[in-house]
Amino acid sequence: MHIQSLQTEIISIGDELLIGQVVNTNSSWLAETLNLAGIDVRQITAVADERDEILRALQEAENRADVILMTGGLGPTKDDITKTVLCDFFEDNLLTHQGVLDNVRSFFRRKGVDLTKLNEDQALVPSKAVVLDNPVGTAPGLLFRRNNKVFVAMPGVPYEMKYLTEKYVVPQLQKLNKGHLIIHKTVLTQGLGESFLAEKIDRWVRGLPGNVKLAYLPSPGIVRLRLTAHGDDLQKMEALLENKVDELKILIPWYFWGMGKEKLEEVTGKLLNKVKATLVTAESCTGGYIAHRLTGVQGSSDYFNGSVVAYSNRVKREMLDVKEETIIQHGAVSKQVAEQMASGAKKMLHADYAIATTGIAGPGGGTDEKPVGTVWISIDGPNGIESKKFTFGDQRDRNIIRTGNAALGMLRNYLIKYTPDLQ
Amino acid sequence: MHIQSLQTEIISIGDELLIGQVVNTNSSWLAETLNLAGIDVRQITAVADERDEILRALQEAENRADVILMTGGLGPTKDDITKTVLCDFFEDNLLTHQGVLDNVRSFFRRKGVDLTKLNEDQALVPSKAVVLDNPVGTAPGLLFRRNNKVFVAMPGVPYEMKYLTEKYVVPQLQKLNKGHLIIHKTVLTQGLGESFLAEKIDRWVRGLPGNVKLAYLPSPGIVRLRLTAHGDDLQKMEALLENKVDELKILIPWYFWGMGKEKLEEVTGKLLNKVKATLVTAESCTGGYIAHRLTGVQGSSDYFNGSVVAYSNRVKREMLDVKEETIIQHGAVSKQVAEQMASGAKKMLHADYAIATTGIAGPGGGTDEKPVGTVWISIDGPNGIESKKFTFGDQRDRNIIRTGNAALGMLRNYLIKYTPDLQ
Repeated sequence: MHIQSLQTEIISIGDELLIGQVVNTNSSWLAETLNLAGIDVRQITAVADERDEILRALQEAENRADVILMTGGLGPTKDDITKTVLCDFFEDNLLTHQGVLDNVRSFFRRKGVDLTKLNEDQALVPSKAVVLDNPVGTAPGLLFRRNNKVFVAMPGVPYEMKYLTEKYVVPQLQKLNKGHLIIHKTVLTQGLGESFLAEKIDRWVRGLPGNVKLAYLPSPGIVRLRLTAHGDDLQKMEALLENKVDELKILIPWYFWGMGKEKLEEVTGKLLNKVKATLVTAESCTGGYIAHRLTGVQGSSDYFNGSVVAYSNRVKREMLDVKEETIIQHGAVSKQVAEQMASGAKKMLHADYAIATTGIAGPGGGTDEKPVGTVWISIDGPNGIESKKFTFGDQRDRNIIRTGNAALGMLRNYLIKYTPDLQ
Repeated sequence: MHIQSLQTEIISIGDELLIGQVVNTNSSWLAETLNLAGIDVRQITAVADERDEILRALQEAENRADVILMTGGLGPTKDDITKTVLCDFFEDNLLTHQGVLDNVRSFFRRKGVDLTKLNEDQALVPSKAVVLDNPVGTAPGLLFRRNNKVFVAMPGVPYEMKYLTEKYVVPQLQKLNKGHLIIHKTVLTQGLGESFLAEKIDRWVRGLPGNVKLAYLPSPGIVRLRLTAHGDDLQKMEALLENKVDELKILIPWYFWGMGKEKLEEVTGKLLNKVKATLVTAESCTGGYIAHRLTGVQGSSDYFNGSVVAYSNRVKREMLDVKEETIIQHGAVSKQVAEQMASGAKKMLHADYAIATTGIAGPGGGTDEKPVGTVWISIDGPNGIESKKFTFGDQRDRNIIRTGNAALGMLRNYLIKYTPDLQ
């Protein structure tokens, strides 16, 4: 039995999209989130902050789709006109909504900031709309129904849109979409490029059943493998994908590190928590990026003591105890300096483990012997120092990200190698 | 005289866009490129690799627009169906095009790779199409005209699409679009929310001439103000916007910090370079984020020495010389600790300026007296210490970003206050 999935469309509203000032990441996040929930997106449309354009896009989408999701144009300023256009479209008018007004007031009170008239106007909502509470911002989501079709307008601020989507939109649509099932599992890997990974798992891929598809999603230093199953029996599909994932883990034990939306810094943090160990970083070419990622995780202060970003050689010497003659003899980008940085940080910041990075992030600063993209990473821990040299590319931002992922991947493997129960 | 601009639409074709696997950066690049060439983009539509969907999108766009630009679906594999759909749409059929065949053959010869039948099929093109040569790939661009409307299909590979756009599409459209010009200037601000900014500049906004529009583009801690002018005299429009930007700068001198695509860390770095001063950071709640942003700028080693990420109190004491009794008396999140961190970092890492941050990034760790989002930032420099307390929200990632922007904004204002020539 195959039931037609809900036809959903996304309308993104904002001049900034049509002049290319902003990339439409809201719609791709929405499309991915809906897709993972088994809901097909049929069209994504971007139109300007103009009444006639928004009205036209709404009318056309209403003719095609069951569900129309809008983002943008709900802010407090003059160029935000989605609400009044919705009133035109649904022959409605704006009324003050007490719940929204209370939320706006308490939002500004929490911030210790005075309300303006513009802020209060956010409590004006179309009278026919169901208000979707937005505690993370001031503009609520608005839900309308007409002729068995559902319309939802959300703010364009990404985290507000995401909150409303996860809290209200996905659960509601999943109820409407019963019987049509798509499930995904995403395996996260670090340390092997897409084509090498493809070679390693080629036989396994060829053995996948017909209702299971594999997609490679590469990003700097990380390749995600997304498995998709179609069907109408959730339990069977779940069991099938779980089995396939287990097979995959055995094929690539040193590259596999997590599932779904996990982050490498979260996974590593959990391992440190399990062995009750602490971590510090000593960063030259990554300039604080690894510390930033580690401290982005809630609760990271349980295992992360801190970092020394040693951009100048003087800071390497004075704060990390790197020997001047080592720098002179081997250069700042060398195995010897990386190892002294790691050991120095471990000692000075009193931790069980230390990550050190030193390299040439680029685009300048390379030599024939050490081209741009040359990076040394060292991990110091209870079982000694491990170091590895990498040769990345010539793009500064990508080199920093790849170094971060390689360093966290090395730490994960170090932890697992000496404490196999962890896996 | 106001000449109506060409109405242009973009249709992006590809399943990957509708499941959110790929962000539609092609369309934002195209939109930006066309816009800078004075050509309005009215709608961007993404549809799947399906015959009926593409046909429908084409028909709808033909009813609205003068120019329809398509990307995607011209490759050699099974899911690439744009060419056959174009044959349906224009009642046409595919013929081998000798010029394209020669190009495909020489393309593979240059790469030293053998041709497949699939590759040769790329030389099959609709007979009514004008072929736009694509020396950087194998699929040519295809241009059709019908009832004074122009249709162009381009490959979805970004650099092929960009080549064809710059070589053929923009010059052709500019000829059709004579006399209609659009220009933008974007003013970057830090330190005031959208609604407060709107109040401050309300009179100025109401005084804008009819051919100038203002849009607010907010993100955590930063609000961009985009001014757009329409007209037919480029020099006059440039002068008008420059004049308006100058007026704005005078209205918000402590909030304005840059223009266009500048980054706050770049702007601050340039100021430090001008006064030949060095900077370090001492980061608790930002956990290395500010150092990461500063070191993301090429050449930052000229003025950035390094950072101590002092996540634990012991690191604050031992590496930054924060007094134990200060932590006990005032708590780690306090003006006193922020100031000792800044002074300690300035001294220990030998810099002219230091930024220090300490706060409760959340979501846990708040108290009644110091709720989540409480942050102290101190700047120590040659003219003494300046400190400020902030009350942000309860989202960890946003609090970190806002603290980073606030700290860099404070440093910029400190530098400018004591060296007014800098501005």
